Amino acid sequence: MLVEIERRGDASLIVLSRPEKLNAINLEMLADLADQFSKAEKEDTRVIVITGYGKNFSAGADINMLASFDPASAYSFRLKMNSIAQRIRKSDKPVIALLKGYSMGGGLELAESADIRIAMSDAVIGQPESSIGINAGAGGNVILPKLVGRGSAAYLAMSGKKLNAQEAMALGLVDEVVDDEAKAWKIIDDICKKPKKTLQFIKRAINSSYDMGLESAMDQEALYFSLLFTDPEVLDALSKWRK
Amino acid sequence: MLVEIERRGDASLIVLSRPEKLNAINLEMLADLADQFSKAEKEDTRVIVITGYGKNFSAGADINMLASFDPASAYSFRLKMNSIAQRIRKSDKPVIALLKGYSMGGGLELAESADIRIAMSDAVIGQPESSIGINAGAGGNVILPKLVGRGSAAYLAMSGKKLNAQEAMALGLVDEVVDDEAKAWKIIDDICKKPKKTLQFIKRAINSSYDMGLESAMDQEALYFSLLFTDPEVLDALSKWRK
Amino acid sequence: MLVEIERRGDASLIVLSRPEKLNAINLEMLADLADQFSKAEKEDTRVIVITGYGKNFSAGADINMLASFDPASAYSFRLKMNSIAQRIRKSDKPVIALLKGYSMGGGLELAESADIRIAMSDAVIGQPESSIGINAGAGGNVILPKLVGRGSAAYLAMSGKKLNAQEAMALGLVDEVVDDEAKAWKIIDDICKKPKKTLQFIKRAINSSYDMGLESAMDQEALYFSLLFTDPEVLDALSKWRK
Amino acid sequence: MLVEIERRGDASLIVLSRPEKLNAINLEMLADLADQFSKAEKEDTRVIVITGYGKNFSAGADINMLASFDPASAYSFRLKMNSIAQRIRKSDKPVIALLKGYSMGGGLELAESADIRIAMSDAVIGQPESSIGINAGAGGNVILPKLVGRGSAAYLAMSGKKLNAQEAMALGLVDEVVDDEAKAWKIIDDICKKPKKTLQFIKRAINSSYDMGLESAMDQEALYFSLLFTDPEVLDALSKWRK
Amino acid sequence: MLVEIERRGDASLIVLSRPEKLNAINLEMLADLADQFSKAEKEDTRVIVITGYGKNFSAGADINMLASFDPASAYSFRLKMNSIAQRIRKSDKPVIALLKGYSMGGGLELAESADIRIAMSDAVIGQPESSIGINAGAGGNVILPKLVGRGSAAYLAMSGKKLNAQEAMALGLVDEVVDDEAKAWKIIDDICKKPKKTLQFIKRAINSSYDMGLESAMDQEALYFSLLFTDPEVLDALSKWRK
Amino acid sequence: MLVEIERRGDASLIVLSRPEKLNAINLEMLADLADQFSKAEKEDTRVIVITGYGKNFSAGADINMLASFDPASAYSFRLKMNSIAQRIRKSDKPVIALLKGYSMGGGLELAESADIRIAMSDAVIGQPESSIGINAGAGGNVILPKLVGRGSAAYLAMSGKKLNAQEAMALGLVDEVVDDEAKAWKIIDDICKKPKKTLQFIKRAINSSYDMGLESAMDQEALYFSLLFTDPEVLDALSKWRK
Repeated sequence: MLVEIERRGDASLIVLSRPEKLNAINLEMLADLADQFSKAEKEDTRVIVITGYGKNFSAGADINMLASFDPASAYSFRLKMNSIAQRIRKSDKPVIALLKGYSMGGGLELAESADIRIAMSDAVIGQPESSIGINAGAGGNVILPKLVGRGSAAYLAMSGKKLNAQEAMALGLVDEVVDDEAKAWKIIDDICKKPKKTLQFIKRAINSSYDMGLESAMDQEALYFSLLFTDPEVLDALSKWRK
Repeated sequence: MLVEIERRGDASLIVLSRPEKLNAINLEMLADLADQFSKAEKEDTRVIVITGYGKNFSAGADINMLASFDPASAYSFRLKMNSIAQRIRKSDKPVIALLKGYSMGGGLELAESADIRIAMSDAVIGQPESSIGINAGAGGNVILPKLVGRGSAAYLAMSGKKLNAQEAMALGLVDEVVDDEAKAWKIIDDICKKPKKTLQFIKRAINSSYDMGLESAMDQEALYFSLLFTDPEVLDALSKWRK
Repeated sequence: MLVEIERRGDASLIVLSRPEKLNAINLEMLADLADQFSKAEKEDTRVIVITGYGKNFSAGADINMLASFDPASAYSFRLKMNSIAQRIRKSDKPVIALLKGYSMGGGLELAESADIRIAMSDAVIGQPESSIGINAGAGGNVILPKLVGRGSAAYLAMSGKKLNAQEAMALGLVDEVVDDEAKAWKIIDDICKKPKKTLQFIKRAINSSYDMGLESAMDQEALYFSLLFTDPEVLDALSKWRK
Repeated sequence: MLVEIERRGDASLIVLSRPEKLNAINLEMLADLADQFSKAEKEDTRVIVITGYGKNFSAGADINMLASFDPASAYSFRLKMNSIAQRIRKSDKPVIALLKGYSMGGGLELAESADIRIAMSDAVIGQPESSIGINAGAGGNVILPKLVGRGSAAYLAMSGKKLNAQEAMALGLVDEVVDDEAKAWKIIDDICKKPKKTLQFIKRAINSSYDMGLESAMDQEALYFSLLFTDPEVLDALSKWRK
Repeated sequence: MLVEIERRGDASLIVLSRPEKLNAINLEMLADLADQFSKAEKEDTRVIVITGYGKNFSAGADINMLASFDPASAYSFRLKMNSIAQRIRKSDKPVIALLKGYSMGGGLELAESADIRIAMSDAVIGQPESSIGINAGAGGNVILPKLVGRGSAAYLAMSGKKLNAQEAMALGLVDEVVDDEAKAWKIIDDICKKPKKTLQFIKRAINSSYDMGLESAMDQEALYFSLLFTDPEVLDALSKWRK
Repeated sequence: MLVEIERRGDASLIVLSRPEKLNAINLEMLADLADQFSKAEKEDTRVIVITGYGKNFSAGADINMLASFDPASAYSFRLKMNSIAQRIRKSDKPVIALLKGYSMGGGLELAESADIRIAMSDAVIGQPESSIGINAGAGGNVILPKLVGRGSAAYLAMSGKKLNAQEAMALGLVDEVVDDEAKAWKIIDDICKKPKKTLQFIKRAINSSYDMGLESAMDQEALYFSLLFTDPEVLDALSKWRK
């Protein structure tokens, strides 16, 4: 198994585990990740956290695998990556990427589909695919601009520039930088305290807003808001605030 | 009246005025805001400024009201909020939110539909709705990403994090931080000097750009530009620069 | 000729050259720019760099020309500007704007359609069109938000605020600030080392992502990725990394 | 008053009434139509029906008015037309256009924003604006394709071809042809029997579907469906069918 | 099992089987349909055909079930319907609905997500949901306009009108009418002779075209076309035509 | 030259001329078409008509060429086709396809990008690409649905069905059927009498409407309308109607 899963509080923790290759992504890891993500979705937890085993998140797609591709195998690989990235975006649970060490290329792309990215202060973050000759293919050109804007996305993709955690946060690519993993878990644990349905609807409203005009997005958001008032956990949380 | 209006120079100043509740929004305030906004649109002024009475902008939607909702009343409330947010975005006049103190939740959402957000340095800014169990429902999930990007929006909405003014500016949620209200009015007064139609077309071009592809947006912007050359105020302003 | 072209390494360098008018754009310059851009696209180079002659990039559209417009001539001018901006965005080669000194208005708009913006530390950057009475008309309202977000775009356009290079970088309007032009060329030369087709597909994927939903954009990006594996230069680059 | 309103069963009937000019639209009629439409929206009725006084629906915009326009007055006229067309599309009540005799140009455009178009068999239907030198400007180029497809829309707009009622129905421009007005009212009365909220949500779901991707539209439709189950009239209607 | 599956030539045939209730859809049928559709996707077949057992396709959602819903259970039902509709649209295999007898409401909505609809000449086709008080909720308001245009969709949804097969074909809601099921299977068998990947890419290109601008859709279609030339079945088919 | 051009009245007539191959499209014809289309755009004419030499419009892409493709050459071919299709859609002049005899595949795709399609009654119309193993790649999957709807497009593409002219007109794929070429030219000549700018803006408004939400499209259409009132030909045409 190149991907491990464990439960940590109310979170399902998914760990990319191929440390001798800096957790580089190959077809076997993708298959394992698909399986473990399915488990995480079924577990009675509130959020899914993705990180890497040891010092690094992931150095990206395995270069030997990339170098063996022809167009058909390349597309097949991308459909597998995209399927996982889509499941990250469509999951009913928030997905939080915990970046550290090398957090690059295909590894970073999975994190870009996550809802939130928290980085350890030692993280090295970038889309260096063009430096080995190829383009990103699982969001590095198309989700990245939604995080950092069109200009920064083009610059990161074309230059392959490596950012430290603070630089990534200044761009909006990382949402919080922590120097201690416990601080990341404090943030995660706080999110776990929110009602499940509330987190699910926030996630859905944000992601679907990119697919529609402003007026329609406002109406859809209002509909999600309204439907929350049928949810026992929401009603219970809210009633505590009534004075 | 829970919303006051006064004229200040060439600006219509709308003030949320329920200071004993930190200017929290209830149905009465929404009705008053709709009325006062109508007045502001009809006044012979050039911009509309929205702020709060006293030390705070607004702490958000009234929690007692929220706690009393069922799905139908929740949707009815959101349609009222969205109607005002839409009028802010569709108004022929630029709308500037002047944030200070608590500038949160539903209050912040109205500010997100404004064109420009200026914050006093003491402002406390955030979308804490999930902390009381619900999601934002008037732009906090769908306009916010257009200001700060997808990642920061998800993080603010899911964590309920409170930002100070400088942090909000670093994200693009606030456009200018001032330590003195007079400085904000200096900026507002400068904007009032621009031709009305010019400001109106800038506003319209920016907001409608989210609704269309790049090529179409460029053509629409060019059409607005061209039509400006029928406007006496524009022609007059421009002629002063001819050498 | 108000626009010069020279070859510099693997880059085609296009220089706006009307220094006595701060490289202000008039109809003659637009015609020359269209011609020189055609040459740059045909040259056996890998990227196109646009800058200004002397100390400034461009102060924007020529004010005397603007002051002479009626709606029909204004639209005709904008179609010419937009045609060039579109060719910048659609070119098979990355286009890099090298900003310095006055980098404003219509000049900045051309740079906004470029893929990457590098600024010299002395650059003065802004969309001051509203200060002379008009709106931007070649991307300043509709591309700018894709670089800096909706709020910052509205503020820059309505206030006409001038930014220094660091402020522009904090907003995402500039991707790198250099104090020495040689440092800019180091970045450009590094980009020139990437395979042509890779850079072309990155550019295309980023720009077309604004035109479609997330799922479709992911699939299109995957198709570009796959097609790269028919390109000799890509396969050659990649094979060097195989271990 | 160039527009009359009367109540007919559960419908508000709005009648364009300038029969000596074939109910041609001028600025006075637009102002009256705006007033009467407001009344119709407030009346305790279930649908709004728009038709013309006497033998014709409307021959279109008044040609003398058109011939007097400059760009600024033309845009001002179009904003007034579009405002009414938008209110037709955004109204909480279904709007049904009852076409007869000349149903052309600007008159037809208002009908195109309606939800349903029923034509008397004598109707003469077309977008003949280009035959007098201009283009349609309130949906005739941009709503029409959503009714009849891109090809038919271009052909009708560029050729100015006049259709009879059956030809218009074959294209999807008309939904039902009747040879007797009573048959039209039978259809209208049947629609009036449906719950108000149901008709409102159908209308909203259809119109907003043009603004978003398929997946998002499906989710929004599901949300509307769900919220119906808070509506007493819906629950009552539905309970009658339970066996 | 309320849904049966059998293999017929190169097609997987899925049969809604609750004939005593006119194959009305309830939660049990949805669960069975999800299971059988999964099987159909995994079978070594080329297309999936959906029809009903006996004389009817499906009369729609079970009214007793509908009458028991509150907002939360209604949304849960719709998510299940939408999940199947989405899988129909996203399947790698073409999905063909074979309509006959009552083909209405929720049953018709599943057929609307299919790629092709063939109707027996006795089919009775419509969206009568509003006649029992509710709106359609799985495409009847948002996919239907993509088949028949905005006007016909609104008319069908608001009036609940029942169409015969020829009327449905005139609107584009049905693609072929046959008086004998064998004729439908002749069409299906012919489609089965096309390469799998070709059919898959046609399906994907059509469905994703609704999600993007014209230029982007053209480029995506070109990419699909190109990638076909890596597929052995395609190359083999094509080589037979070389002269 | 495999494409001829001649002037006929106020129209530029472009003729695909490879009659011994049913005017099948190969790379040489595409290059010639690009050249002749450029000429047609520069000629002092009002519309561009495309037809085929002799009895047929075009049988589609040359099969021997198709059978020789690999992914890279296939993409290169499609970019050339798409470039011409785009120029047809973006041309300032209306483009009218005059279909006759075999009007299929890639030939039909070019016609689909035209504004109007007139068919001789002997035309045989279809997208039979899947019958030889491939998909259409220049609009046959993505423009076709905008003419005939999603269902008919999928059916035509997946089945390869051949339509006669009347069937194609019933679907909206053809706008007029004539039994005599002179009747087609009567329609074309009538269109030539409309002001150039009016036809150009109709074309632009229709095509860009697919790229944006309804409200934005209405505003853009209004802007085009307004700008017409600066055009001497328009003002002249209109003044003749003033009473």
